[in-house]
Amino acid sequence: MGAKSLHHTGYTISNLDRSVAFYRDLLGCEVVATQEKQGGYLAAIVGYPDAHVRMAHLRVPGGEHVIELFEYLSPPGGRVDVEPRNVGASHLCFVVDDLRALYERLQEHGVRSFLSPPVDVDTGINRGGLALYVHDPDGIILELFQPPPARTS
Amino acid sequence: MGAKSLHHTGYTISNLDRSVAFYRDLLGCEVVATQEKQGGYLAAIVGYPDAHVRMAHLRVPGGEHVIELFEYLSPPGGRVDVEPRNVGASHLCFVVDDLRALYERLQEHGVRSFLSPPVDVDTGINRGGLALYVHDPDGIILELFQPPPARTS
Repeated sequence: MGAKSLHHTGYTISNLDRSVAFYRDLLGCEVVATQEKQGGYLAAIVGYPDAHVRMAHLRVPGGEHVIELFEYLSPPGGRVDVEPRNVGASHLCFVVDDLRALYERLQEHGVRSFLSPPVDVDTGINRGGLALYVHDPDGIILELFQPPPARTS
Repeated sequence: MGAKSLHHTGYTISNLDRSVAFYRDLLGCEVVATQEKQGGYLAAIVGYPDAHVRMAHLRVPGGEHVIELFEYLSPPGGRVDVEPRNVGASHLCFVVDDLRALYERLQEHGVRSFLSPPVDVDTGINRGGLALYVHDPDGIILELFQPPPARTS
């Protein structure tokens, strides 16, 4: 009993085209599917009779876990304060090969919403790695994590 | 360039022991690691000089994607309104074998925070499946999804 696996992490975003471009063009995600859904079973699940969304499924090539993006055309919503210390706030962590290079590249593409430059992980099991937090176009927090080099022992 | 894979989905929760019990005992997650971290590189990444967290990594057995739970002991935070239509809201989707049975079992264990009973997915590629949304102990939205039976063609 219980769950069998994880399928996706979903985020509500304000502009599907903008978010898809960000995740695809800057983070290398692959668009697996896009569709528009209105009413029906979706409305029953999310609890809005007038639910109308544009959605996309993305994946990092080679991985299984899906990123689901929902733009609600209806009903209109507010904005979540996704500051890390707030209960209910979430972040999605991407593994990257070369965080310093990606950090440069994202800046060249106009990304300014870093909480810090790459930080050296200097203690614990990930010692030797690098990580940072950055906001996506809606302020959603992403972690970019470069694991430590494989140890030869 | 870009990301290589996804590592985890992180949530800030208010009580680590309570959340670990929920994800482990009711959803069948395995606790991969727990630790307490203060200051240092964590503070630099999350942007709080006084950052002090209790954390756990959980996994659905057989899967790779990690659920990271952070209880902030410092600094104190507020609460996010994770209603699905709000930009920045997130949900995590679990695949289950028998949603109706799990729905009964969760209710027997006192879970009341379902947005709906199991909903028949009656159109699209997941036609024949079942799904619902439910809040975790902090109001974080989880989707429980039973895929359609494999088709023999």
